[in-house]
Amino acid sequence: MCTYLKVVTSWESPGDGIQFRRAGPREKVYFKGEEVNACIVTCGGLCPGLNTVIREIVCGLWNQYGVRNIIGIEDGYRGFYSRNTLELNPKVVNDIHKRGGTMLGTSRGGHDTAKIVDSIQDRGINQVYIIGGDGTQRGAAAIYEEIRKRGMKVAVVGIPKTIDNDIAVIDRSFGFTTAVEEAQRAISAAHTEAESTENGIGLVKLMGRYSGYIAMYATLASRDVDLCLIPEVPFYLEGEGGINEFVLKRLKENGHMVIVVAEGAGQELLGIEKNTSTRDASGNQLLHDVGLWLSAKLKEHFCATKGEGLNLKYIDPTYMIRAIPSNGSDNVYCTLLAQSGIHGAMAGYTGYTVGPINGRHAYIPIWRVTEKQNQVNIADRMWARLLSSTHQPAFIKPHKDDNEPQQRASD
Amino acid sequence: MCTYLKVVTSWESPGDGIQFRRAGPREKVYFKGEEVNACIVTCGGLCPGLNTVIREIVCGLWNQYGVRNIIGIEDGYRGFYSRNTLELNPKVVNDIHKRGGTMLGTSRGGHDTAKIVDSIQDRGINQVYIIGGDGTQRGAAAIYEEIRKRGMKVAVVGIPKTIDNDIAVIDRSFGFTTAVEEAQRAISAAHTEAESTENGIGLVKLMGRYSGYIAMYATLASRDVDLCLIPEVPFYLEGEGGINEFVLKRLKENGHMVIVVAEGAGQELLGIEKNTSTRDASGNQLLHDVGLWLSAKLKEHFCATKGEGLNLKYIDPTYMIRAIPSNGSDNVYCTLLAQSGIHGAMAGYTGYTVGPINGRHAYIPIWRVTEKQNQVNIADRMWARLLSSTHQPAFIKPHKDDNEPQQRASD
Amino acid sequence: MCTYLKVVTSWESPGDGIQFRRAGPREKVYFKGEEVNACIVTCGGLCPGLNTVIREIVCGLWNQYGVRNIIGIEDGYRGFYSRNTLELNPKVVNDIHKRGGTMLGTSRGGHDTAKIVDSIQDRGINQVYIIGGDGTQRGAAAIYEEIRKRGMKVAVVGIPKTIDNDIAVIDRSFGFTTAVEEAQRAISAAHTEAESTENGIGLVKLMGRYSGYIAMYATLASRDVDLCLIPEVPFYLEGEGGINEFVLKRLKENGHMVIVVAEGAGQELLGIEKNTSTRDASGNQLLHDVGLWLSAKLKEHFCATKGEGLNLKYIDPTYMIRAIPSNGSDNVYCTLLAQSGIHGAMAGYTGYTVGPINGRHAYIPIWRVTEKQNQVNIADRMWARLLSSTHQPAFIKPHKDDNEPQQRASD
Amino acid sequence: MCTYLKVVTSWESPGDGIQFRRAGPREKVYFKGEEVNACIVTCGGLCPGLNTVIREIVCGLWNQYGVRNIIGIEDGYRGFYSRNTLELNPKVVNDIHKRGGTMLGTSRGGHDTAKIVDSIQDRGINQVYIIGGDGTQRGAAAIYEEIRKRGMKVAVVGIPKTIDNDIAVIDRSFGFTTAVEEAQRAISAAHTEAESTENGIGLVKLMGRYSGYIAMYATLASRDVDLCLIPEVPFYLEGEGGINEFVLKRLKENGHMVIVVAEGAGQELLGIEKNTSTRDASGNQLLHDVGLWLSAKLKEHFCATKGEGLNLKYIDPTYMIRAIPSNGSDNVYCTLLAQSGIHGAMAGYTGYTVGPINGRHAYIPIWRVTEKQNQVNIADRMWARLLSSTHQPAFIKPHKDDNEPQQRASD
Repeated sequence: MCTYLKVVTSWESPGDGIQFRRAGPREKVYFKGEEVNACIVTCGGLCPGLNTVIREIVCGLWNQYGVRNIIGIEDGYRGFYSRNTLELNPKVVNDIHKRGGTMLGTSRGGHDTAKIVDSIQDRGINQVYIIGGDGTQRGAAAIYEEIRKRGMKVAVVGIPKTIDNDIAVIDRSFGFTTAVEEAQRAISAAHTEAESTENGIGLVKLMGRYSGYIAMYATLASRDVDLCLIPEVPFYLEGEGGINEFVLKRLKENGHMVIVVAEGAGQELLGIEKNTSTRDASGNQLLHDVGLWLSAKLKEHFCATKGEGLNLKYIDPTYMIRAIPSNGSDNVYCTLLAQSGIHGAMAGYTGYTVGPINGRHAYIPIWRVTEKQNQVNIADRMWARLLSSTHQPAFIKPHKDDNEPQQRASD
Repeated sequence: MCTYLKVVTSWESPGDGIQFRRAGPREKVYFKGEEVNACIVTCGGLCPGLNTVIREIVCGLWNQYGVRNIIGIEDGYRGFYSRNTLELNPKVVNDIHKRGGTMLGTSRGGHDTAKIVDSIQDRGINQVYIIGGDGTQRGAAAIYEEIRKRGMKVAVVGIPKTIDNDIAVIDRSFGFTTAVEEAQRAISAAHTEAESTENGIGLVKLMGRYSGYIAMYATLASRDVDLCLIPEVPFYLEGEGGINEFVLKRLKENGHMVIVVAEGAGQELLGIEKNTSTRDASGNQLLHDVGLWLSAKLKEHFCATKGEGLNLKYIDPTYMIRAIPSNGSDNVYCTLLAQSGIHGAMAGYTGYTVGPINGRHAYIPIWRVTEKQNQVNIADRMWARLLSSTHQPAFIKPHKDDNEPQQRASD
Repeated sequence: MCTYLKVVTSWESPGDGIQFRRAGPREKVYFKGEEVNACIVTCGGLCPGLNTVIREIVCGLWNQYGVRNIIGIEDGYRGFYSRNTLELNPKVVNDIHKRGGTMLGTSRGGHDTAKIVDSIQDRGINQVYIIGGDGTQRGAAAIYEEIRKRGMKVAVVGIPKTIDNDIAVIDRSFGFTTAVEEAQRAISAAHTEAESTENGIGLVKLMGRYSGYIAMYATLASRDVDLCLIPEVPFYLEGEGGINEFVLKRLKENGHMVIVVAEGAGQELLGIEKNTSTRDASGNQLLHDVGLWLSAKLKEHFCATKGEGLNLKYIDPTYMIRAIPSNGSDNVYCTLLAQSGIHGAMAGYTGYTVGPINGRHAYIPIWRVTEKQNQVNIADRMWARLLSSTHQPAFIKPHKDDNEPQQRASD
Repeated sequence: MCTYLKVVTSWESPGDGIQFRRAGPREKVYFKGEEVNACIVTCGGLCPGLNTVIREIVCGLWNQYGVRNIIGIEDGYRGFYSRNTLELNPKVVNDIHKRGGTMLGTSRGGHDTAKIVDSIQDRGINQVYIIGGDGTQRGAAAIYEEIRKRGMKVAVVGIPKTIDNDIAVIDRSFGFTTAVEEAQRAISAAHTEAESTENGIGLVKLMGRYSGYIAMYATLASRDVDLCLIPEVPFYLEGEGGINEFVLKRLKENGHMVIVVAEGAGQELLGIEKNTSTRDASGNQLLHDVGLWLSAKLKEHFCATKGEGLNLKYIDPTYMIRAIPSNGSDNVYCTLLAQSGIHGAMAGYTGYTVGPINGRHAYIPIWRVTEKQNQVNIADRMWARLLSSTHQPAFIKPHKDDNEPQQRASD
């Protein structure tokens, strides 16, 4: 439940078919600039644009609302338990958007709602900006609830972060276009490696635990990819319409190929193997890394079938993508998110997150973006475009079960 | 008037409040792949993405519809009069999207409707893809009319191109995000130069004859710009709220500043001067180049006021921006445009152009995109965000005329 | 033995203390342009600049000597057994220097001297340009010997290629500066990742099987690296002056660190482990990959010592570095190598390779560059500079053996 | 005259044919770390690497010699008269090498020897590091002389800076390889623009007032350039072997061409014109800009000869090149310069500058690098390679004067 600080009211579905309130500056502000004690925290893995969001929250509060007390909580949620904080002002954040990472540091987990709210109370903070992914936003929702229970006049704002673009409700997440752009570099290298040898395969693993957006868009942007595997599309190796068959066919036609695989793709295949085969010797990482697994499987099959080696080059550019600064497009987007965020808090809203819905920036109750994840709709045009670009098989088994995943009904 | 080739019918406003038909593949195709003789032509100035559009038209026709006769008309409209053409197939276009420019060559003007349609007729072409800007699309509309008059069964498809993003009706034009991104390089250099000297000004001229989209988004993306001048916002140099005053103030505060100016900004000021002052000696280019003009004016004023020099560095990155390959985001977009284009032609539509309207790709009669140009709405949020980012003056003269430009009514 | 085609003569050490003949055009040419049948082959792994060397051999022969018969042997040595070859001329190679990889394809091994010389004979080839690494150049020497035995008038030219910069005699190898430059990207990402978390380590594995040049120069260029491990410097994990101790210390001081490790570093440590532990279960790759091995060891030690996790991010940018186009500096260098190569062959030299020695390009008998490999001299200033930049330990065990490696005598 | 601080002695030509003392750490240091008061100043135009040199002087003094008092003089020589200085330590300079420009600011001129030495004396500074070009080093020599006269124990170290690479004695200047690399971007854009139109010319002006090194190396690196004009090679427009003839010929052959011109090329032609035509109206800049002048001349000639327009695109990337961060190669080089600099000062040398001579870093009396400038030797192999790459005319007039420039004697 998202609320005004002044009057607790359901501000979702304000009526007339409008589902969320539009983000933006309000005529009446709840906080006076000089009364605001704001804090910013970043949690979870790196994502291009973190620094831009920090910068624009700071500059926006400072320049547009005259706020002078803004601190940075260091190293994620656990930073709330630390005595140290960073003083933030336009000068210290001036150039941070040109650097990757987060100037505040980050960490995973470390969330203890009561202790965090104690810390907020002790420090006299009345605006909390929490930038992070799924788990982080669930934490933010819990913080908001606890604050509400205690009757504190504190605005809690979540800025959703996921490089995978799998946040529900909103159109896209920041850092995504930068990631797609930077992924081109890895795909291009894979293509060059593949092209330069006989039976050359360039295999690139991209981010995407539960959704294949980065893999799909990077494939569409590159025009060099022959096969794109995403979590939403179950695939199989053996038999008709399987990966092995397709790879042999494409190698025969072109002499080389490029494969893009999202990190979450085919996990059910790896999982099966994990349970039945020796688990200890190979180690966790090997088994769970779909890229390494697929590399091994393809080499094995090719060798068994053709009696010769496969020139497979495996590239995992994950950290090189996550750590770069955001591009121009994401910079503009991060600015919009940050400004939406501060306008809402200054107007007295709380418990919300921000983001565009069909192109219009809105305030959304935090719980709405954490209850489920976005996935590539493979009945949609974009995936159809990908298929017509790669000419890859649809991977639908001939004798498929009745309980087909719901989203594919419209195929 | 846009028509089906089979049955002449108004396909615009198909009813029920839907204004344009949605782009995409149709169940029934009008042309058999083997009957198609397609040609592609590119006209006007360079724009990132031209080669991607060419590539995707060729690959789409070839792979999805089995078309085998596709030619490239060289060097713009005038190429229709030449005997030479380029044979196009997936192999020759395979890597062109990684290069800037257009593999077909381009030129301005050279449009003789009757001769072009003669050439189309003589060569037995039945699908014409015309990629170009405003003037080019007007030419395409004329070609479509002439073809209709002659009763030829030829589909005419316009792919709108303008790096300035000023095409009406559609959401954005291809190459725009690439241009905004690449402009960061020039702005960043201007910032470094300005920062490194006392009274340092970095002045960057960006594309935008009639609209300031590139300047506005490049400014928002950069976060380093102190002043952004666009054609939509008349400005003045002297007096209160004028450029001179603002520049002196910002230099005093910060010691340096960065100015971005769209090429079409302030032309009315330059025009006045052109008529009243000596025109011959200075030459056309000097007077019309707002960047050079503004440089001279600022230096003059600073010297007169402060009695010392201004370290102004002027950067014109226009050709370095236009000539680069399109980025990943534009590559995806160009693919969508090209595929929309060919699906429509194969289905028998003609006289249309393609592009997204509120996020959905549609078929639009060519004349609709040429009757007016898009401009930055300075009453809109995006310009407000720019103002709050640069803190520049609004440049509204105290005693302004009654006949204020229409779009600013909502200010 | 390197020879003139016309008169068999020892042209090495032409006397007067000059060790090698200077490369460059000669007044008298042995071949008339129209008589030349040249072929070019690329072997081994990718390296930035391969396409530039190919381009400049083709353009140089064509433009400067009027040669019109130049073919490309595809996919390495084994391409000599294939019927297919590529016709090469300035037009087909015009843009290849802007692309990574090799337009001719490449492969490892596949060398059968007799069959290759048969193929050369059958095709009437009289100039053979062989671009490749150590093994390839040994093959080239064998081809040269066989050709000499058969009394054929064929010039054999080796262009040494190794991204590792470990070719003896010559100053540096092509692609090296490009590799050092591109490695910055990975180091920078590692630095951003490390900085953003507590106990963050960014670990980058760079090329260098037997020599640490890339690791050393990339470290010096970056200024962000805390520890650089190369094959020339044996290191150890445990005890005083060991890696573990240093890592804990640096993390305690700075909270994060960046490690660069050459792929050949510490192989003796991995080897020991390989023999004593189960070899089959872990798989070859895991054991031999020093990056993965070091990651596991550091995590283990940190967890055992501190009872908490280490945020280690491992980046292997190898293929992303190898596959990029050469930079400007390498382009100039590749041009010089190619031109030296063709001037020698046209003048009737054979059995030589080319490269700069103390800044002057020379002709060197092939066998001279394959008899040993270059290594970083750790008694030299450059390594001392690295140590003073990283402040890493010298890794000299307290009770070291008497038979210290020779090159370290001058420490 | 370069001297030891302790014993005034001629340390140049220490005998045995060695011309300069080798740079590097000395066993005996003159200064104790805790006694050192160092200052750093940067003067003149921007050049990639300035920040790296600053960083490495600071880190080297701090880490290797325990120096704790290091200040930055702001905005060039005139900063000596200001009260404000910047405190420098490893933390504040930690990331500056990743940014272009100079963190200290810079300016031209403003040199008053007596006042500067007063300021040095007043502040108790005993090590002065002066980074700048020709004029700056002459200033440094004067400061050194004045300090010697006053009998002060102050080490004066000049770090030569010129992006043009025209500093005498030393092998190359920092920032040069970065500039050549970045120039590729402009040349590539010029090439794309030229290729895309009929009679297309891409004209790029590069730095080089008195020497054509950047233009020559950028041309050699690019392989796309048809004509390279440098100050060392006088050219003419009209008549046989002139520019006009060559341009028409190349356009006829290829349809397009790329021209690179160093800013100082052909100044004698522009100068003549300046005197005979109206000087005031056009302004200095227009007349002296060889790029604009050449553009106008070529258009004029083409129009007069062919009766049609020339598609000439003029690109001046100067500021976009100067302002970027140094690349890896220059970073290593800047580190070496800085370290040579501090080792010398700590050892008690003064009045010297540093740089490599035939690959070995040496200490050189300041006056030796300012007495003349380096120029491209057009009798040398590198220029010959350029000619064989571009096939441009030699521009030797048929009836040339007797007093041919000396360096061309060996042609």
